Amino acid sequence: MALTTRINADDVAFLLIDHQSGLFQTVKDIEVPTLRNNVVALAQIAAIENIPVITTASEPKGPNGPLMPEIHENAPQAVYVGRTGEVNAWDTPAFVQAVKNTGKKKLVIAGVLTSVCVAFPAISAIAEGYEVFAVIDASGDMSPLSTQVTLARLQLAGVIPITTTAVISEVLKSWQHKDAAKYAKALSMVMPNYQALIESYYKAQEVALENK
Amino acid sequence: MALTTRINADDVAFLLIDHQSGLFQTVKDIEVPTLRNNVVALAQIAAIENIPVITTASEPKGPNGPLMPEIHENAPQAVYVGRTGEVNAWDTPAFVQAVKNTGKKKLVIAGVLTSVCVAFPAISAIAEGYEVFAVIDASGDMSPLSTQVTLARLQLAGVIPITTTAVISEVLKSWQHKDAAKYAKALSMVMPNYQALIESYYKAQEVALENK
Amino acid sequence: MALTTRINADDVAFLLIDHQSGLFQTVKDIEVPTLRNNVVALAQIAAIENIPVITTASEPKGPNGPLMPEIHENAPQAVYVGRTGEVNAWDTPAFVQAVKNTGKKKLVIAGVLTSVCVAFPAISAIAEGYEVFAVIDASGDMSPLSTQVTLARLQLAGVIPITTTAVISEVLKSWQHKDAAKYAKALSMVMPNYQALIESYYKAQEVALENK
Amino acid sequence: MALTTRINADDVAFLLIDHQSGLFQTVKDIEVPTLRNNVVALAQIAAIENIPVITTASEPKGPNGPLMPEIHENAPQAVYVGRTGEVNAWDTPAFVQAVKNTGKKKLVIAGVLTSVCVAFPAISAIAEGYEVFAVIDASGDMSPLSTQVTLARLQLAGVIPITTTAVISEVLKSWQHKDAAKYAKALSMVMPNYQALIESYYKAQEVALENK
Amino acid sequence: MALTTRINADDVAFLLIDHQSGLFQTVKDIEVPTLRNNVVALAQIAAIENIPVITTASEPKGPNGPLMPEIHENAPQAVYVGRTGEVNAWDTPAFVQAVKNTGKKKLVIAGVLTSVCVAFPAISAIAEGYEVFAVIDASGDMSPLSTQVTLARLQLAGVIPITTTAVISEVLKSWQHKDAAKYAKALSMVMPNYQALIESYYKAQEVALENK
Amino acid sequence: MALTTRINADDVAFLLIDHQSGLFQTVKDIEVPTLRNNVVALAQIAAIENIPVITTASEPKGPNGPLMPEIHENAPQAVYVGRTGEVNAWDTPAFVQAVKNTGKKKLVIAGVLTSVCVAFPAISAIAEGYEVFAVIDASGDMSPLSTQVTLARLQLAGVIPITTTAVISEVLKSWQHKDAAKYAKALSMVMPNYQALIESYYKAQEVALENK
Amino acid sequence: MALTTRINADDVAFLLIDHQSGLFQTVKDIEVPTLRNNVVALAQIAAIENIPVITTASEPKGPNGPLMPEIHENAPQAVYVGRTGEVNAWDTPAFVQAVKNTGKKKLVIAGVLTSVCVAFPAISAIAEGYEVFAVIDASGDMSPLSTQVTLARLQLAGVIPITTTAVISEVLKSWQHKDAAKYAKALSMVMPNYQALIESYYKAQEVALENK
Amino acid sequence: MALTTRINADDVAFLLIDHQSGLFQTVKDIEVPTLRNNVVALAQIAAIENIPVITTASEPKGPNGPLMPEIHENAPQAVYVGRTGEVNAWDTPAFVQAVKNTGKKKLVIAGVLTSVCVAFPAISAIAEGYEVFAVIDASGDMSPLSTQVTLARLQLAGVIPITTTAVISEVLKSWQHKDAAKYAKALSMVMPNYQALIESYYKAQEVALENK
Repeated sequence: MALTTRINADDVAFLLIDHQSGLFQTVKDIEVPTLRNNVVALAQIAAIENIPVITTASEPKGPNGPLMPEIHENAPQAVYVGRTGEVNAWDTPAFVQAVKNTGKKKLVIAGVLTSVCVAFPAISAIAEGYEVFAVIDASGDMSPLSTQVTLARLQLAGVIPITTTAVISEVLKSWQHKDAAKYAKALSMVMPNYQALIESYYKAQEVALENK
Repeated sequence: MALTTRINADDVAFLLIDHQSGLFQTVKDIEVPTLRNNVVALAQIAAIENIPVITTASEPKGPNGPLMPEIHENAPQAVYVGRTGEVNAWDTPAFVQAVKNTGKKKLVIAGVLTSVCVAFPAISAIAEGYEVFAVIDASGDMSPLSTQVTLARLQLAGVIPITTTAVISEVLKSWQHKDAAKYAKALSMVMPNYQALIESYYKAQEVALENK
Repeated sequence: MALTTRINADDVAFLLIDHQSGLFQTVKDIEVPTLRNNVVALAQIAAIENIPVITTASEPKGPNGPLMPEIHENAPQAVYVGRTGEVNAWDTPAFVQAVKNTGKKKLVIAGVLTSVCVAFPAISAIAEGYEVFAVIDASGDMSPLSTQVTLARLQLAGVIPITTTAVISEVLKSWQHKDAAKYAKALSMVMPNYQALIESYYKAQEVALENK
Repeated sequence: MALTTRINADDVAFLLIDHQSGLFQTVKDIEVPTLRNNVVALAQIAAIENIPVITTASEPKGPNGPLMPEIHENAPQAVYVGRTGEVNAWDTPAFVQAVKNTGKKKLVIAGVLTSVCVAFPAISAIAEGYEVFAVIDASGDMSPLSTQVTLARLQLAGVIPITTTAVISEVLKSWQHKDAAKYAKALSMVMPNYQALIESYYKAQEVALENK
Repeated sequence: MALTTRINADDVAFLLIDHQSGLFQTVKDIEVPTLRNNVVALAQIAAIENIPVITTASEPKGPNGPLMPEIHENAPQAVYVGRTGEVNAWDTPAFVQAVKNTGKKKLVIAGVLTSVCVAFPAISAIAEGYEVFAVIDASGDMSPLSTQVTLARLQLAGVIPITTTAVISEVLKSWQHKDAAKYAKALSMVMPNYQALIESYYKAQEVALENK
Repeated sequence: MALTTRINADDVAFLLIDHQSGLFQTVKDIEVPTLRNNVVALAQIAAIENIPVITTASEPKGPNGPLMPEIHENAPQAVYVGRTGEVNAWDTPAFVQAVKNTGKKKLVIAGVLTSVCVAFPAISAIAEGYEVFAVIDASGDMSPLSTQVTLARLQLAGVIPITTTAVISEVLKSWQHKDAAKYAKALSMVMPNYQALIESYYKAQEVALENK
Repeated sequence: MALTTRINADDVAFLLIDHQSGLFQTVKDIEVPTLRNNVVALAQIAAIENIPVITTASEPKGPNGPLMPEIHENAPQAVYVGRTGEVNAWDTPAFVQAVKNTGKKKLVIAGVLTSVCVAFPAISAIAEGYEVFAVIDASGDMSPLSTQVTLARLQLAGVIPITTTAVISEVLKSWQHKDAAKYAKALSMVMPNYQALIESYYKAQEVALENK
Repeated sequence: MALTTRINADDVAFLLIDHQSGLFQTVKDIEVPTLRNNVVALAQIAAIENIPVITTASEPKGPNGPLMPEIHENAPQAVYVGRTGEVNAWDTPAFVQAVKNTGKKKLVIAGVLTSVCVAFPAISAIAEGYEVFAVIDASGDMSPLSTQVTLARLQLAGVIPITTTAVISEVLKSWQHKDAAKYAKALSMVMPNYQALIESYYKAQEVALENK
């Protein structure tokens, strides 16, 4: 019964749900720029590996606002599926069909709000036999308490909570990857302090060689 | 074994337990106005959908204080069941009978304190075969630590923790709902920043049309 | 040199600056509903005492959004002064003239952001000989660190930081005030837990009389 | 598989482990006076119901310090079992024997540190078929992170985390209890703000009757 | 201009203002039991040294609730001065007269709320030439932000913020004091962890002597 | 004595001190990406207004690491002054000379660590008659406590603490500025949530015009 | 299904993964010195009991930096296994072989980052039938949110979260252990406040004997 | 009036007051190991520069416990002055005499508790014409609130708050100092993350040279 499944580049689809400018204003469990960077990094990794990406938005012509444009900019293969009002994207037949079309049985889901836009389709997908990962820090909710509650609910449903860094690292698998440099850049965007680490590293080497 | 159940307007009853003015003073895991707004929003949604609501209070003539009046004001169908001292509302036969009378097998429970007034009847109801959701942010407890502990206990018992926003959204199902405007108003009360979002939206549109 | 000045209903004007729906989304040092309630309470007290209120907004047709309508709704005497792009309202001659027109030498200033929209005119007013109070919790800024920094700057400039509760209480002066009930209502909106306190109080008395 | 067991006055024993003055200095997840009050309240309730209490201490003649005296002062029936160095009290045969002697199959365990002195015997007892509750706020650990980790471990082992307030309330069952007043006093010690609530209540009634 | 004044047992009066059960429910910058203990400790020290204590309450027959009884219980010399509605106790002539009657020019003030009930009379007293200390942790306010703001205001007015421990220690002056044991007991109530420290100390000594 | 000075584009120089990749790893009072963005925004504003910028680094060939390159990239007029080991940049004659060469008497200083690299030259400059602003959120220190302590020291020295947003806004003065769009972009980088606000705004307008 | 397994000195191996100086800079859920001390203590205990220790590092010649040297200094039996780019150490055949060579079926894993370097091999090991403990406070991650998410994932996989103190205590088993003094020293390094406790203890005894 | 004084190695004395093992248990505003390291670093710097150090302890034979031994171990020139019960070390004539004997007019004071053992002698020394620095993070107090209050009091008295890092850096003055390596080591102990930074630096250089 232990959930020990791993994500691989060729067996997974990314569902990025309701990352909209208006909804971002309601997010209080993570800084919005951090959240946004994490979503961009997922899109970039999907682009490298040609992982299917499905986006959707909730009432994007109303106060919820437009989808953040960086997803489609970074992952050209991403497919946008409109909804006709359904809160749970899994209640939109076209959305479920898009998921089926990918042929993948493992789903990585992120979105805003975690407790609604992520939790609902995640749980629905579990009920239909998918393996589901919820990327909590590429999602956002209205308070740390909401996130804590939602994590507990996801656990009970068998949805696996995961971080952006872990998703990227599971897909990367090895630094011998031919696109390792792109992964390093994505991780550097996601991990505070990593950019400075790299700068220090190259400077130290430069100094060493100068002084030799 | 995964708990993937969903709430629907026609298969659920709301149990709102011991939301009393005195007990509110002991709540430290959430701001009292936020807690109170969340309870009101649940009552409003119940009213829209005619979801059965059962309220009860613990020793309302003593220091625990009177039940917050907004529940019955907002949900006229709510039924109040008095207790004769039982801490666990499920130990009051009239309360259990009232639940049975609703004919529903899914229960959404909120109350003060979460660790006692919510956890006890939630666990008792699970033991009798109900599916139970505990609305953590329409409930309150005496410290964040208490809430953390209680969440763990609820998980072990198979009670599903949930947020107010998620309850409302699960019941709403689609923005094509005939009472979507009422839901928007309820969510706006529950979600910090949403009211300002709507104001900005309409102002931006007004400006756009003026400038045309 | 000690700043021991007091506010009185007849010697003060309220300047409410840039309380706009868009700017509210950038506020992170206080919950937006709390901030908004505090501003409303100031408007209500101003209405009771006919204290001059001057409002202004920064680029209200752009993303900063419209002024919150509750101020003018609650304080009909409030005067709105438009600006033509000036960040510091005190750089707008019409604004300074409006202040002069009040004939008051004590100014209570609140606004969003504290570090800019409050601090700038507050410091400018000090430089021109006014006594100035900055209502920190009827204002908002982008982080607790910003607020801490701004408090230090205001102190150095001789601007007196104050809370909404303190402003209302200084104006009230005595519970024998003919409008004491209105003040109690305003304070109840501003002070978490106070509403429940009042409910408990009256219930306890009702019980006592019933049981007699 | 859902853990829905309840505590009753006649089917439970309390194990209070290593509540020692020296160990208290290492506690950082709860204020020491709060922790100590919670332990005292458990002892008082045990005294009322004659619930078996077993205490033990780890190296009480060394820096860990003496057992807090209030336990035995409040619960005269408590039995102290010395250990000969065992970290896990369940590794001390006399301790296990003392538990067996109570004839109870439900154990309520509290102690310092939660991650060691509570978790070890709790897990050992589960392994031998007991139902075990760990009272997290009558226990203490060296950081909030330790507590979070330990809660997760306890959940995996099937140990039920619980709060002091919940233990007392489960044992109380009904305010018609003949010793309800003693329970109220114990809860008032455990619940911040409750003492003031009671004072306000009686004052309000007194005023009502005076004014009549 | 540096404020280097010290408190001595014979040149100071204590003003304890509005420590009322109802107002305690609005306090969020300090735990209520801690606040209450700190006030009791001040009363005990005043009793030892016969320092004049003046208490007062704001509308004690309304929801603000009764004065905490421990002050007068511990400091029998304390004088209660009723008010007829004045928010600022210094606006009550009988209160100012009571202060004058003490003949002291240094005032130690504590109360609830800090931003109102402490700040107002503190600033008024400064304006009349007193040296004033505000005991921030024997006072309470509605949020940490309120406290931060009020500290800044007090500084500008020349009111010296101080802790309960510092007040007691300044009065004590030397552990050769004939009532040193009473001071130790008061400090032990005020300082978390100190009680356990003393227990450990005596146990260690007892063990040392046994083992000799 | 009140410090009411304002910054203007033509009377100020920016001193950016020791923003080095290694030192960034020791910063704990602000997120490093936020800190870095704030420094970049200052450089951009300096470029727009041709405000003199002086940079310097402490032992950039050692573990402190290289200066962040974005400063000189964004502000081509910036002058780098090397030091020969001095901790306080003001102890380096070439640095003081560079400051004098600007001819400005108002200095805006930011750097890492605030308590050392900002505080030392800020205080030295005050001692020589400059007016000095310390940009606390374009600086970093090793703990929130360090920042709190340093703010207090700066206040005593007459150094004015300020935020990045306030510096930019004081220089901007009016949205009629010919480079207002560049300022908006800089502020959007500095202020969390502002980017999303702008996106929502334009989408709302687009929808309004479509629907017309 | 309850996970009640215990660690014993002779049935466990320690896997210490990617404790590298560069990665330490990205750790934000625990103070780096604390994390490092905890790892040292595990190494010391392993040395006492001759528990197999396997270390590995991720790209130690790049910005991730060198392995902290204290592990091999304290546990001479530790075996270092290089990787050829694999993120998940369990994907390195030599690493898995090293684990198999120990002959142990219980694994205690710590590393940086928890969500990647600990979680991946922990889950992989579970999948192959090992019992796995993840030492959360001898590991580090980039935010408290990451840790919270990772704990939930580990629970779902059946990995047991544990603290350093608990690992040491489970191995110690009894203070009659012949190397009890070494354990006390290790625990004193891991537990804040314990060193001072010991100092106080011996001083108190010394005083008692002097005074006799 | 601006306090712009600097510390120099030859014009300052260090007063380290009541750093005792028992009192450390009451410290809650800083981790005890951090506090202790900071004090050690001050002692080491004093040893390098032969800065006079005076230590004293409050009732070191009672529960307050013995002075931490590392001070005298690291600074052999340190002079211990016993007290006969005085809380304020400045009330002990031998202590004041010892200060006078140093001939220094600038005093750097640290101790436990900040609000008492640091604040009292600091203020007394100011009153006698000394320039005084209070090292807040080489001191400790019983809550963050206590520290905040004490900082405000110290400011009013003209005592300059400072950090350990700042004291060391002001004394160091230049990295050309002949004992720069010893300073680097002391700073590395005081600054979290610095040790790892140095390790990374040398490893990067080693790799660069290997690869050349």
